[in-house]
Amino acid sequence: MATTDEPRMLKHQVVRSQLDKMLDELSEGDPFPAERELADTFAVARETVRQALRELLLAGRIERRGRATVVAGPKIVHQLSIGSYTEAARESGRDASRILIAWSHFHADDTLADHLEIETGDPIIQLERVLTVDGVRVGLERTRLPERRYPGLVENFDTPSSLYAAIRDYGIDFARTVDTIDTTLPDAREASLLHVDARTSMFLLNRVSYDQNDIPIEHRRSLYRGDRMTFTTTMHA
Amino acid sequence: MATTDEPRMLKHQVVRSQLDKMLDELSEGDPFPAERELADTFAVARETVRQALRELLLAGRIERRGRATVVAGPKIVHQLSIGSYTEAARESGRDASRILIAWSHFHADDTLADHLEIETGDPIIQLERVLTVDGVRVGLERTRLPERRYPGLVENFDTPSSLYAAIRDYGIDFARTVDTIDTTLPDAREASLLHVDARTSMFLLNRVSYDQNDIPIEHRRSLYRGDRMTFTTTMHA
Repeated sequence: MATTDEPRMLKHQVVRSQLDKMLDELSEGDPFPAERELADTFAVARETVRQALRELLLAGRIERRGRATVVAGPKIVHQLSIGSYTEAARESGRDASRILIAWSHFHADDTLADHLEIETGDPIIQLERVLTVDGVRVGLERTRLPERRYPGLVENFDTPSSLYAAIRDYGIDFARTVDTIDTTLPDAREASLLHVDARTSMFLLNRVSYDQNDIPIEHRRSLYRGDRMTFTTTMHA
Repeated sequence: MATTDEPRMLKHQVVRSQLDKMLDELSEGDPFPAERELADTFAVARETVRQALRELLLAGRIERRGRATVVAGPKIVHQLSIGSYTEAARESGRDASRILIAWSHFHADDTLADHLEIETGDPIIQLERVLTVDGVRVGLERTRLPERRYPGLVENFDTPSSLYAAIRDYGIDFARTVDTIDTTLPDAREASLLHVDARTSMFLLNRVSYDQNDIPIEHRRSLYRGDRMTFTTTMHA
């Protein structure tokens, strides 16, 4: 498939590289030329420009503001860590918050029971929230907790705040996390909740956190916008 | 944009979830029904089925074998680590190798000089290789090294083997690595080298490795297929 795409790709790649150079000269929020204007400038078909612009949009280099296109800000660089993303973003001087999507209650199926080391059918609390950083919706996080372990959580938890802090209030410490990291595309609901184009590459993190006694605390599924987030990690021998 | 896409998305998402259920019942290498047959089965337009199949293809659940479509194998789960991917894959019992794309020589620009803590204009060796695991092209890695530090490397290095092992032979130990992880789409050349559709979400890792004296060893840009690779990491408080 790549081979058949190649002639068209190569043409719009040339335009893409020209646009990348233009972007290097511009600042965040600067207006970016319209498709028709760029097609004239580079003497190529508007479809060719459209493809290059779509790539820049999905890569987070430009963004739409109504009918205008502007230069996007730098991505949010987030250290992979055991702790709370809300707390980490705030410590790095950002305005981080959460938007509650839903609390729900159900019973663990075999897979979840296995992750959380509980019995199949045990009651589960699920919290789904959108993570916002500096007012931008960057992630959708779904946390599943064994209900018996967190009495009163649903009633007392302040949903914009850090769930990790609330869990620590139960005397539970986060000692270890195991993450898997995949790339994926958002489904229609996820794309709507995160205000992204459905073709935006996303990070999908699945995490199980363990406490000081190596008991699973939570299973968390996190979807982060690939056009707004860069993860970083430092490892030592 | 997501909102306007939603009606169409929702329809093909229904088909997608049905196909996911079908896949759960099948084994690696099993033939998967053709587009026309699935369109009849679900009584939907072939375009709806085509979209769902494209998603499954990009997600690595199915793969093309000539004109046939078969159930794909599980993704390769790779531990984020400071060490050699070749060595790690081999230790996990996989057949890992490298295909040489090119050696090249150039002079460091300001950015690379900054990464490698050398002078702008210093000579650089660049090695570009495709990483194969069990015969599948899963990654494209471009390593840039300060040439003065590795005399004879180009002449003596066995390119399918571990570059990390060759560097250790110079008495240089890998003590620390700093990675950034992004999602991206491959360009036409990258898609061709990795035999992927140009719409496949990819992991992009940029790494600087440091030795026992905290001197930068290499700058490495690695592109891994999101449809074939899952990264995993375990963190401790």
